[in-house]
Amino acid sequence: MTDRRRFLFGAGVLAAGSAACAVWPSQNDGSATPRLAAPEQPPSSPHGDLAEVEPMGDVAQRGPVAGKPNFVVILADDLGWGQLGAYGQTKINTPRLDQLANEGLRFTDAYAPAPVCAPSRASMLTGLHAGHNPVRRNPPKEGELPLPAGTRTIGDVLQSVGYKTGMFGKWGFGRNAGDEGSHPNARGFGEFFGYMTHHAAKSYYPRFLWDNRNKVNLPGNFDDYGALYGPDLIMDRALGFVEENKDDPFLLLLTLPLPHAPSVISDLGAYGNKPWNPANKTHAAQVTRLDSYVGLLVDTLKRNGLDENTIVIFTGDNGAHEENGVEPAFFNAGGPFKGLKRNLYEGGIRTPFIVWSPKLLAKTVRKRTTHPTAHYDLMATMADYAGAKAPTNDGYSLRKVFNGSAGAPTHEYLYWLRLHAGSTKTHRALEHGRGRQCSAAVRFGQWKLIGWAPGREYSAPNGKWVYELYDLNKDPGEKKNLVKSHPAIVNRGVRYIRQSWRAP
Amino acid sequence: MTDRRRFLFGAGVLAAGSAACAVWPSQNDGSATPRLAAPEQPPSSPHGDLAEVEPMGDVAQRGPVAGKPNFVVILADDLGWGQLGAYGQTKINTPRLDQLANEGLRFTDAYAPAPVCAPSRASMLTGLHAGHNPVRRNPPKEGELPLPAGTRTIGDVLQSVGYKTGMFGKWGFGRNAGDEGSHPNARGFGEFFGYMTHHAAKSYYPRFLWDNRNKVNLPGNFDDYGALYGPDLIMDRALGFVEENKDDPFLLLLTLPLPHAPSVISDLGAYGNKPWNPANKTHAAQVTRLDSYVGLLVDTLKRNGLDENTIVIFTGDNGAHEENGVEPAFFNAGGPFKGLKRNLYEGGIRTPFIVWSPKLLAKTVRKRTTHPTAHYDLMATMADYAGAKAPTNDGYSLRKVFNGSAGAPTHEYLYWLRLHAGSTKTHRALEHGRGRQCSAAVRFGQWKLIGWAPGREYSAPNGKWVYELYDLNKDPGEKKNLVKSHPAIVNRGVRYIRQSWRAP
Repeated sequence: MTDRRRFLFGAGVLAAGSAACAVWPSQNDGSATPRLAAPEQPPSSPHGDLAEVEPMGDVAQRGPVAGKPNFVVILADDLGWGQLGAYGQTKINTPRLDQLANEGLRFTDAYAPAPVCAPSRASMLTGLHAGHNPVRRNPPKEGELPLPAGTRTIGDVLQSVGYKTGMFGKWGFGRNAGDEGSHPNARGFGEFFGYMTHHAAKSYYPRFLWDNRNKVNLPGNFDDYGALYGPDLIMDRALGFVEENKDDPFLLLLTLPLPHAPSVISDLGAYGNKPWNPANKTHAAQVTRLDSYVGLLVDTLKRNGLDENTIVIFTGDNGAHEENGVEPAFFNAGGPFKGLKRNLYEGGIRTPFIVWSPKLLAKTVRKRTTHPTAHYDLMATMADYAGAKAPTNDGYSLRKVFNGSAGAPTHEYLYWLRLHAGSTKTHRALEHGRGRQCSAAVRFGQWKLIGWAPGREYSAPNGKWVYELYDLNKDPGEKKNLVKSHPAIVNRGVRYIRQSWRAP
Repeated sequence: MTDRRRFLFGAGVLAAGSAACAVWPSQNDGSATPRLAAPEQPPSSPHGDLAEVEPMGDVAQRGPVAGKPNFVVILADDLGWGQLGAYGQTKINTPRLDQLANEGLRFTDAYAPAPVCAPSRASMLTGLHAGHNPVRRNPPKEGELPLPAGTRTIGDVLQSVGYKTGMFGKWGFGRNAGDEGSHPNARGFGEFFGYMTHHAAKSYYPRFLWDNRNKVNLPGNFDDYGALYGPDLIMDRALGFVEENKDDPFLLLLTLPLPHAPSVISDLGAYGNKPWNPANKTHAAQVTRLDSYVGLLVDTLKRNGLDENTIVIFTGDNGAHEENGVEPAFFNAGGPFKGLKRNLYEGGIRTPFIVWSPKLLAKTVRKRTTHPTAHYDLMATMADYAGAKAPTNDGYSLRKVFNGSAGAPTHEYLYWLRLHAGSTKTHRALEHGRGRQCSAAVRFGQWKLIGWAPGREYSAPNGKWVYELYDLNKDPGEKKNLVKSHPAIVNRGVRYIRQSWRAP
């Protein structure tokens, strides 16, 4: 282990590591709100929040892992923190995910890197937080933003050490065209099947999907209506990828559009007879369908003996949506947290994060952790496990957290950015009309600082920004703004916010 | 009109034509059992039960049909007469089919041509009854029986007058291979997507399907389990066929495997929480799924304005099954009729038959008819509408019945055959142990005669056969065997049974 790595282990102030592991309470026991305990002043770090993660040698030499573990990352789309039974949900059935949580490790303090889809996913793919990654906002109407040439993703990193990589679902970078330069096949994923763009992924009965660079026409589909539910097609290819690559290490990234708007499902299932508004029924069925797909995938892993050496991570890309008639309040979709998709309040960014690998990670079975993480930690984590060299990124490996070992590196702070990305009623109301302005937030220890630029430009001078400060330990619902009573904390947070933006 | 045709109009003895039309009673009013009134002795017919149907000239000259009507034929698989709401079902939801029935014409006395799949379908395709058509039994385990070279189907007949023809679902004739000689593409269907064989169609999550002669692999499907529900894929292609051919006359033959065993569905829907045995829940969900698919297809017709000139026919290939734990008695699947798939009692052969074309067939909207028909009438019917010349066949056109006109030709008798085709408990018990023997039946007027050969050979001398005779008017449930008290009727039926078998 290098000195550099040793340093990283101690960096940051957020509560972390095995000390934060505890047996997860049974569902709805009221203890879902985590409590943080961390000093207000961190040790200073000459490296700031950037760290180059270096390989730790052959993973096979260092533990119970016979070879490089496979990774399955399942990213839900607009799923609130509180929308799984394992995270306190009472109206929506998610038996398979609850089972994974009971057999795995639940994070209470995991975050999407941004409150909307494109920058969140770009961050997860690149390991760069939302102030550094190349895609900082959802695509404008006139087109979709690419991952520029030279961008290296988690797919590239794992490919470099022999992984087979497959990406199934919504990609979201570049044009809806087979010859797009920013195509998954050119960004680290050897196999791709799904939607190229965010816009296209709103069609649950897509008129076509992409099989790598080839268009697959679906003649009996008419966007909101048809015979072939897009997620079914995507799942079929994802399961096939598992079967085909069971003898190699692989990364499977599954980004189904569920439960993103519109509320379209092929079958309402158990919700058909509920006395709910139709959008809520469909939304619930979408979440349950996602749960069923996860079950299908896990069953496929087991049937192929891959549960021995696969780490499954389930999480979401941002908070719950309130689009097309869906009422997140009806589901208490944010759990104890305020805010929705597009807000930088906790409800817009905090997300379920379940790590399942009961044989590889036996020590954290049925545990939970308050270790704070954002998806830009995934690249460092995977590189760590796989013995790969990752490009410079903003993440820290979660391996010790997954393993239940002491000394996991922690972030000095976590950072979020929100540029203009549409608007919905509750999201606007919560921000007192600032919902379309540029906004940024940081969390350090129990503190959460959210700032709003006067308009859409991050470059506005600090004096023009407005801030809110919350103590997440005492006030996880972000109700009491402490900005006036804690100027030193605010100043520290402002410094983080100012230093984290790098002009794209 | 030729003399020959005029003769045919008067042939036969079964109650028929518009006189048999009546407003259909509301669901479950107890009047679902039809009553027949017909003389016991028919006029003799020099042509027996064979008739060559000749074209009646350009259909466009003769009525409200602007051009040749499209035909959509939907054939359910092992659906009992009583399994739709429109036919008295109370446990299974079939709202879309019930709506079609309310907007169309319901047949009470429609029959599948055989009590099992392969001969029933062969008969429907060729217009030949089960004693004449080339496939008289379900395939033996070692292979599937082809439709031999030279066989002409309803697809061929309509292709000959310019129809586009598509067959989507279970084919069931010949090997499971793209180069099969008896492939749908070589038997009158320009487009095919689905299962080639009966055996293959038992996989609701097929590992592959056929797109014409090309194999489409479905890597995430594992027969009973997977991501892509075969019927969804088939529906997508069927809907695409409608869209692609909306400017031409077309025949769409949809033969989804639903609700055939095994009881596999992608979502239990409203049945998930029912306190029923799991196979029954799944079976009900299969029927409701079939109903939803029909709705999807009808919606697609409407969206393309094709409800103006399309005749939709929904029916089934034989009676209800009791396989894989499904309990037809629980659903009263046969309605008032005794028997299941494989029996020649009414429950094994009588089937729902709904004709929907509210604009073309305005006179029979919300009507029912007791006109007896078997699927071998479809070729003659389609040829009649399309102005096509059909090969020699056993059917009569149903056009006048569909139209609500007087004088529809009727059969002297209907004929069924059952050769060995597997066995289930109730089917065996009802036949007092004769369930594996060769059996044949005829219906003429209210009389139904069923005979059993001593073994599996039709050629056994008549003296070795055993018979049962029922009066369907007085005893639709076939409880009182009248064979001893009505020797003249029996003799007439025996004559029909003996004359209807032609050595294959």
